[in-house]
This record gives sequence, structure tokens and C-alpha cells, in this order.
Amino acid sequence: MRFALTLEWNGGPYMGFQRQSHGPSVQQAVEEAVESVTGEAVVLNAAGRTDTGVHALGMRAHFDLSRAFDPFRMMEALNARLRLAEHPIAVLDCSHVAYDWHARFSCIGRSYEYRIINRRAPLTLELGRAWRIAKPLDAAAMHAAAQALVGHHDFTTFRSVHCQSASPLKTLDRLDVRREGDRVIIEAAARSFLHHQVRSMVGCLALVGQGQWPVGQVAEALAAKDRSKLGLNAPAEGLYFVSATYPGE
Amino acid sequence: MRFALTLEWNGGPYMGFQRQSHGPSVQQAVEEAVESVTGEAVVLNAAGRTDTGVHALGMRAHFDLSRAFDPFRMMEALNARLRLAEHPIAVLDCSHVAYDWHARFSCIGRSYEYRIINRRAPLTLELGRAWRIAKPLDAAAMHAAAQALVGHHDFTTFRSVHCQSASPLKTLDRLDVRREGDRVIIEAAARSFLHHQVRSMVGCLALVGQGQWPVGQVAEALAAKDRSKLGLNAPAEGLYFVSATYPGE
Repeated sequence: MRFALTLEWNGGPYMGFQRQSHGPSVQQAVEEAVESVTGEAVVLNAAGRTDTGVHALGMRAHFDLSRAFDPFRMMEALNARLRLAEHPIAVLDCSHVAYDWHARFSCIGRSYEYRIINRRAPLTLELGRAWRIAKPLDAAAMHAAAQALVGHHDFTTFRSVHCQSASPLKTLDRLDVRREGDRVIIEAAARSFLHHQVRSMVGCLALVGQGQWPVGQVAEALAAKDRSKLGLNAPAEGLYFVSATYPGE
Repeated sequence: MRFALTLEWNGGPYMGFQRQSHGPSVQQAVEEAVESVTGEAVVLNAAGRTDTGVHALGMRAHFDLSRAFDPFRMMEALNARLRLAEHPIAVLDCSHVAYDWHARFSCIGRSYEYRIINRRAPLTLELGRAWRIAKPLDAAAMHAAAQALVGHHDFTTFRSVHCQSASPLKTLDRLDVRREGDRVIIEAAARSFLHHQVRSMVGCLALVGQGQWPVGQVAEALAAKDRSKLGLNAPAEGLYFVSATYPGE
């Protein structure tokens, strides 16, 4: 019996989704909750791995159980356990899926949102939930620069040295920048991303927004296919995994 | 020299704005920051007092200093001290004002926002920042019920026993309820409010939204002028002091 979950979490306390020997992870917290509810040790697979401190609004994941269990009761029981253990992780949805449905390998689209708060004052309610940039940002210039990255490219410049992807070639479907009051929101969508790709792209766009880079320098950095041309990696705390898409959805 | 501040804070760690002998307050934190910057002990006056756990997005306040100080430098220095002391309080604006400008007594309008997240799953990123209600809410019914409270009324039903106001008569200018996805937002505006008035009104509207009260029961509770007719006091963590208005603004 395969169960699909939609998960939301505050990434602050975790070393990312994936289980780590040296610190807490979302995977471990949810696997322990499932075992505590069902008595079965399971492995949780997710659409994306996410870095330390990165948040999720709608991560998709799955695990297998040897016996039947009502999905709604599973959701309620997991939420009760996670809450009891004071994990800022919530199961937004739980359903049965076919045994060939795989949260990672069946996924055909992923989207992220990056939240910047553009003001001088430090953050209070949004502390750890956004990147504060004090210098005024030109969101229109950032959006213009971002368009050079949309499409099929070699994203070597925007790839972490720890990236395990076989190829630096990716197709970026969308990279939109918009301002809402003192917020600058960046939305990115692709079938898949390289390690650190969104944060690397946002870092360069922030330099454009502050006037430190001309709009065309993002295209030049991409064309260079050289990690040393990267301007800046945006901090993890502003990044949210928003959604994963599957065939037929 | 009178300085006016616009303050934002996460109310979680504080027993409200006002200084208390038995716990931390926003007033104490900001007064200590001013003294640490200027060497002068000051008294901070705010447009509203706010309860334990209530947040502020744009509280207005003032204090007096015996000597000149550049307002921009004051804002930067206060934010640096508050941040160093790990207070989730930020100064969004600082300016000189006339000596007869008083944050509380000159204020002619106050507005609050109440944030409900309407879903079964516990909160993660919004924990302590909204009221989660699991049962589906009918926001249109809540808005309809709310309109009975708008206008000049005796708000005894919606008043705390600890309220220090001379009269229970208040004029509520606006009480709007709207849904945005799984969020239900309630906005309230008036020249001034009674103690617990917003949370008391929201509590009753939540009962209407869940179908436990018919729409007309809010008007009946108001007409009763009887605290025992109150349905429910909404929790502090969903309440935000949004803005204060002054003559000429």
C-alpha cells in the first residue's frame, strides 16, 4: 500500500529534507511519526531534497506500508505525532497512490518561491522566513535580467560544487520577479533544478536589483558556464519549495 | 525633542506593549534600547497597549529626549540594539514631531487585522502568528454577521472585565471578513476599541463561520449588553495591530 503525502514545514530546525547522520531532518521526523503510528519502519521519498533551512509549502512524498490504513486517519495521526514532538512539519494531504507512482521519479514539474523583504529594519515576524535586503531593489530590472535564464541552458554557473546531477543542462520554464509593497517575490518553475540553482539565480538577480550588476551581466554569467562568475548565493531562509506536479494532475 | 516611532513586533515573547513587573514587554525593550543609545531614561507612549501575544505591524509611539539626535541615526541605532538583544521588535520609521503630538491622545483612528488559517493540519511557518480553525468557515456568513456590529453601539458584550474605558460606547467604523485561499482575514477599524473587543468580536464571528451561531446571533449578543452572551474570545496570536492615524495624515 503506497501513501502519498503533501508536506509543509518550517526549514529552520532541519538540515534539509534528507536524513543526515549529524542532525535533524524532515525525512527522519516523518519516518519516525509513521513508525510510531503504524509500528512499521518506512522510507520516505520526496520530490526534492531541499537544503538546510529551506522551507516547503507543498512538498510531495511517498512511503509504503504492508497493511491497509485509512489515508485520512493516517494524516490526522501523523499530524498529532509531529505536533506532540514539536516538529514544525504538517501533513496537508494524504492519499493512496498506485505502486508505480514515485514522488521523485514520477515528478514532471517543480516550483519554488523566493521571498525578499526590501527594507532597512530587521525582520521580526518574518525572521528566518525571508531574506532582508536593505538597499532598494529594482524589481523590474531583476525580472528583465531573469528572462535570460529562461529556456534550455547549461547552468554550470548556477550549480553547486556538490551537485550530483549527471548534466548541467536544464530547462527553466519560468523565472518571474514581482514587487508587492516592501516584498520582492521570485517564482521559479522547471522539470528539475540543479543543486543551489534557485539560490544562485536569486543571488545574481539581487545584485542586479541593487544596481551592482547591469541587467545583461546575468546572461553573461550564464554564457560563461563558470561557477566563479556567480555573484552571490542567496540565503536558504528565503527559499520555499512550493509544489510538485505529476502526470494527469 | 519629541521622537515618533513606527514599530513592528512579534508579540510571542511579550506580555503586551505595556511595562509589567512580572515579565518582558515591548515598552521595556524599546525604552532600554533608547537608554543604551542615548544614555537617557525615557518613557515610551504608544497608540495602543495590546495584550500578551498580540503582534504589531505599524504601532505608533513617542518619547522625549533632552538633546538633539538625528532621527535616521536613531532608527538605525535602536534596530541594532534590539537585534543584538534578540528582541523581535523593529523600528520601521523614526521622525521628529511637535511637542503636542501624542501617540495615544492625538490618535484618531486604529486598525487591527485578525488572521485565521482554516485547515485541518497544524501550523508550521505560521505557528504563533495565526489562529488555526479546522472546521470549514463560511466567510460570507461571518462578514454578514459582522455588519451588525458596525456603527455606534454599547459594546458591553464584547468588553473584558478588566477594561479601563470610561464608557462601553464605541463607534466601529469597519469590520470586514474575507477569504484568501485557506486564510480568513478580519479587518477592524475604529477611533478606539475596548479591551478585548476585537478578539471578542472575532470569537463570535468564528462561531457563525462554523455554523454554531446563526448570523443574527451576533446582533442579539450585542443588543443584550451582557458579557455572558459572548461566544468565545479569539486567541491573541492571530491579532495584529496594523496602524494608527493622526490628524493631517
